[in-house]
Formats: sequence, C-alpha cells, structure tokens
Amino acid sequence: MASPLVNRRYYLRRRPQGLCTGSDFELVREEVPELRSAQALVRTLYLSLDPTMRIWMSDHRGYMPPSPVGAVMRGVGIGQVVKSRRDDLPVGSLVAGATGWQDYCVADDDILELPLAVLPDPLPAPLPAFLGVLGVTGGITAYIGMDIVKPQPGETVVVSAAAGSVGSVAGQIAQAKGARVVGIAGGPQKCHHVTTDLGFDACVDYKASDWRTQLDAATPNGVDVGFENVGGEIMDHVLMRLNVGARIALCGMISQYNHYNSADDAPGWTPQYHIVQLMTRRASIHGYLVIDHADRYGEAIEYLARLIAEDRLTYHETILNGLENAVEAHNMLYAGGNTGKLLLKVAEVAE
Amino acid sequence: MASPLVNRRYYLRRRPQGLCTGSDFELVREEVPELRSAQALVRTLYLSLDPTMRIWMSDHRGYMPPSPVGAVMRGVGIGQVVKSRRDDLPVGSLVAGATGWQDYCVADDDILELPLAVLPDPLPAPLPAFLGVLGVTGGITAYIGMDIVKPQPGETVVVSAAAGSVGSVAGQIAQAKGARVVGIAGGPQKCHHVTTDLGFDACVDYKASDWRTQLDAATPNGVDVGFENVGGEIMDHVLMRLNVGARIALCGMISQYNHYNSADDAPGWTPQYHIVQLMTRRASIHGYLVIDHADRYGEAIEYLARLIAEDRLTYHETILNGLENAVEAHNMLYAGGNTGKLLLKVAEVAE
Repeated sequence: MASPLVNRRYYLRRRPQGLCTGSDFELVREEVPELRSAQALVRTLYLSLDPTMRIWMSDHRGYMPPSPVGAVMRGVGIGQVVKSRRDDLPVGSLVAGATGWQDYCVADDDILELPLAVLPDPLPAPLPAFLGVLGVTGGITAYIGMDIVKPQPGETVVVSAAAGSVGSVAGQIAQAKGARVVGIAGGPQKCHHVTTDLGFDACVDYKASDWRTQLDAATPNGVDVGFENVGGEIMDHVLMRLNVGARIALCGMISQYNHYNSADDAPGWTPQYHIVQLMTRRASIHGYLVIDHADRYGEAIEYLARLIAEDRLTYHETILNGLENAVEAHNMLYAGGNTGKLLLKVAEVAE
Repeated sequence: MASPLVNRRYYLRRRPQGLCTGSDFELVREEVPELRSAQALVRTLYLSLDPTMRIWMSDHRGYMPPSPVGAVMRGVGIGQVVKSRRDDLPVGSLVAGATGWQDYCVADDDILELPLAVLPDPLPAPLPAFLGVLGVTGGITAYIGMDIVKPQPGETVVVSAAAGSVGSVAGQIAQAKGARVVGIAGGPQKCHHVTTDLGFDACVDYKASDWRTQLDAATPNGVDVGFENVGGEIMDHVLMRLNVGARIALCGMISQYNHYNSADDAPGWTPQYHIVQLMTRRASIHGYLVIDHADRYGEAIEYLARLIAEDRLTYHETILNGLENAVEAHNMLYAGGNTGKLLLKVAEVAE
C-alpha cells in the first residue's frame, strides 16, 4: 500500500493589515483523505496570483464572500486530476478553477466555488496561458471589459496597470480595434516594455514626479475610453482628461485593496475627487466582473487565440516556484515587481 | 420720445470663494441700446435658480465655459419680447432661455448661448412651470435621467435632494414606473413634504445623526437605481447599498460646487471613497446633461403634462421677488431653504 499523499495547505488565520504576511496564514501538512463517491483529487500545478485575492483575505464587501478565517485560502489555479471517482474528471485531465492555496484539492459537487473546467486536449497553447492571456483573470477579463466600453477607431484609450496581465491584453485589443492606446505603468523599464514589446502608442510612468504632465502630453486629444485597474489619483487625473461621451471600464482598483484592513469605512484609502467630471463630460463608469460573463469565455478565447496567431497579441508571464512562496509571490503584485501574468508553479504536469 | 429703458445688470466681478456674495458682483444700471436689425429686446420675467450656476461662477472645468468675469452673469429665465426686429420673436411672445441676470436682454444670432425658445400660446400650464416641472433645468432633467437608468417595477430607487425641483419629479417618475422610491432630504419638514405631499415611499433626513441607519432601514432590499444630485458622503453610503446591476444617474453634485474656488484640485472637496463598489456590484454611473437631449424636450413635456393631468405628479415652487435679491436667492439653494423649484420673479407679464 502506497504511503498516503501529503497535502500542504495554507489556512487563513487572520485578516491581514496592509500587505499580507506569513503570520496571517498557517501552512499545514495534512494527509489527503480517501475519496468518497463523486469526488476527484486534483493536484495543483499552477496558482494564479491576482490583486483580487487581497479582497478575499479581507472582510470587505466584495463580489464574493470573504475567504473564511480558518479555511484554506481561496485561489484560482490549474491542476491535474490524479485520482477520480467522477466521470467528468478523468485521471490525467487538466483543469482550471478554484484549486485553493494547497497541493491537492478534493473536487466534488459541494465545495467548488468556481467550478473546475476541463481544458481542451490537445492544448492549443502552453498550460500557463490558461491562467494568463487565455485565462479568466487575464485575457478574458480584458476582452469582456473592452467589449463593454467599445473603443472606436481613432479614439484615445488609457489603460492603467498596462504591464499587468489584464491591462497588457486590454490595450492590445483596443489597438486591434483601431484606437490609439496610452498605457500607465510603474518605472521606465515597464514603460519601455509596454511601448516596445507590447506596442502601445505611449506609456506614462506613474512613478515619475511629472506623471500628470506626461499623461497630458500623451493624450493631446483627451481620453475617450478608460480601462481602470488602479483607482486613486491616477484614475482622478484620467477623469480630468475625459472627452464628452467617454466610457470607463472599472476592472479593478489595486490602489485600494491593501487598505482593506477591517469592515469599517477606513481612512487611508485614496478616494476619487473628480467623479463630478462624469457629469460635465457626460461620461460613464461601468463596473464589471468577468465571472458574470462565463457564457462568453469560449468566444473570448477564440478571439484572443486568433490575435496571437496573427502576431497581434504579445503576452508575458512571470513564473515563480514553490507553494511555500505563495505569500511573497502575492505581495509582488503590490510591489509592482511582475511583468505580465504572475504565476506560482506548484508541481510538474504528469505525462 | 419715451425715456430710454433702464436695464439693471449683474456683472460678475470676481470668482466667488465658497458661497457667492454681493461683492462678487456689481449691479449696474445701463440704458438699453437701440435695436439693430435682427435683434429683439426681451424683458426678464422669472429667473431660474439652479445649483449649476455656482459652477458657472467658478473657473472649474465644467460642461459650459465659465461665466466670464466682467460680463453679465449667465442665467436661465423666462422673458417677454417687448421690442423686436425679428420675425421669430414677435412682440408680446413669451420665451425661455439664457436671459442672464438682468432686466432686459438683447437677443440676436450671436449672443445666445442657450437659444431662446418661444413658449406655446395659449400656455398649457402657469408660466413658472416652464422653469420648473416642465422646464429644462427641472422636470425635463428628471425625465432624461430616469430614462437613462430605467427603473423597473419593484426596484428600489434612491433620490437625493428629493425635495428639490429635479429630485421631486425624478422620484415621482420612478413611482409611475412601478418602483419603490426612497428620498433623501434635509430636515424633518422636508422629509414630511417628500413622503406626504410628493408621496415617496420613504424619506431619509440627512441632517439627522442617524441618517445612515435610516437609509439602511429604508432600503432593506438594497438599492437598484440611484438618482444623484448631491455627491460626497451621501452618495458614498448609497454606493455601499447597491445591488448587483445597479445604475446611478449622476445629475449633480451640489455638495461640491461651493468648493470650486479656483482651478486647482482643491482639497476641501468631499470625495468618493466607495467607487470600488461599482466593480463588486457590477454597477454603473452615468453622467448626463439635459442640454444634450434637446430633441426630446417635447416628448418630456408631453409625458410630464400627462402625469400632472392624471394627478400623479405634484410640484411646488418657491418664488422670491426682485432682481436685486439674486445673490441671496441663489444662496438659498445651498442653505437648503427652498422646496421644489426656486425662482426669482423679476417682472410681471404684460398683457
């Protein structure tokens, strides 16, 4: 009889204050239980690291319930079925979904907050792409957002977090639609990446003291479309540049999440001062969540795969290694350390 | 030969700091000049007092150019043509438009920022109604806003500045559409007016220390539609109550305008802390300006007149007297002193 599988699991022990730390979690080693009927055992191969996870760690009013204190931290990943008592999840198949921050998850009808989707066989793209450029929290989020604000040929589109997994794709979609695209990213290196590798028309370095002047210079005809991932003073300055009839897709507000320290209306947040510009400019902000548009994932993947095949969509990944580095890897998002999609590799795929 | 007509004119002399004062203007008496060809002389009968005028007094980036320092203060009113060298403006006809803060305006092709519209003869409603419930800055603004956010039967609609000329009509339109309507107004007297006279389902007194609790209690099923005229912390609390798919019509942000003291990004404004809720609730904010929808004024007046005829739309006016009281009358808007449309009567209609 084989020795039982050991599962390393990150339990959330308390809600973080500011950036999360190792003390907010406990990494526990447990034996994987025997499967009951209608269960499958999925080994985590990659974990997706996304800003939204910091919301899940808080008890802030979000789009999903908080990740409960005392439970395994919620996480989206790619896994491989290693044991199965389910016909829909055969052994060896690759799946994407809410694997959690752990080596193994037991999939059954009850526990899955985000149902596991079996990936196509053979894979049309390398495995990590299904968490990135072709993934729900990556390219598909960009596709849905751009479909809401519909950039038109000749319009000026501003994309914040332009070097990130969503912004990088959003801007390239807007360019494919014929728009002029200005990115906002942190530091000269990322800005160089955005204009040179991704091909944006311009990029503003928000870490430079003159970033407002840069943004004004890069948008001489104002802003018709915003793709907003940051919030705070960057979003405020974009609001001041809006043209009449402008549309903003509100995808994220990463500048806020580390202030989600408690349920109270916490000061320390960076609020918006220029919402009144929506009125004077007859403009609109559209909040959205990709998970509302699950019926369009196929269409999105098809569109994105076509752009890649036509060499019109470039993507990058930053892949870190080891489940034991999950907390530090997550925090890299907030330090602006990654380019493109940030992933944590947990295990090798088994042939 | 008749003695020349004297025209009292309010020149804007400097941009106000905070509430405007008499020292920001100069009330000058000038002779009315002889009419040139294609001109008409219009005597101001009523001036409309609207929060948006405080924006015009500032040099803030608004939807129209600021009212220039050194020129007669911009103002919307109803007037009567008293002399004319234009076929489209016959003597005796009643007109609505940008009369300015003065006894007489000379109308020609060049000077009219908001073209004068001749009112129907005979009048289907009392004259002041054409600045209020049937006016562009009153009921028509409410109609267009409600058409953007489209309240559905059974939905909960929250209307701020509910006792004002726009909010009072917006709420009643939403009720006519079958929605449950909660107003927000200042003080028990106004709240009583909103629920008893206007027939809103509930009204929250924002001057009460427990207004947040009141608003929570009045919206047990959350908020589906917002009609926003105030901004600041009231809007922020509404954002925290939004349901998935909620829509907010951004009609005004009266809490901001008295902070429009200079062109800089002034502190002292009351910003929005909870814009991120738009994302988690998949909600949208739609800024709009009634003047973009001039082609629908007729449809709006028809709809509102029908509601009035069916006794489903109640409206109130607060009418002050005397052009010399324009500044104090305007400031009553910010003191919350008026119920319904605030007007300044300048002269009697001539038979």
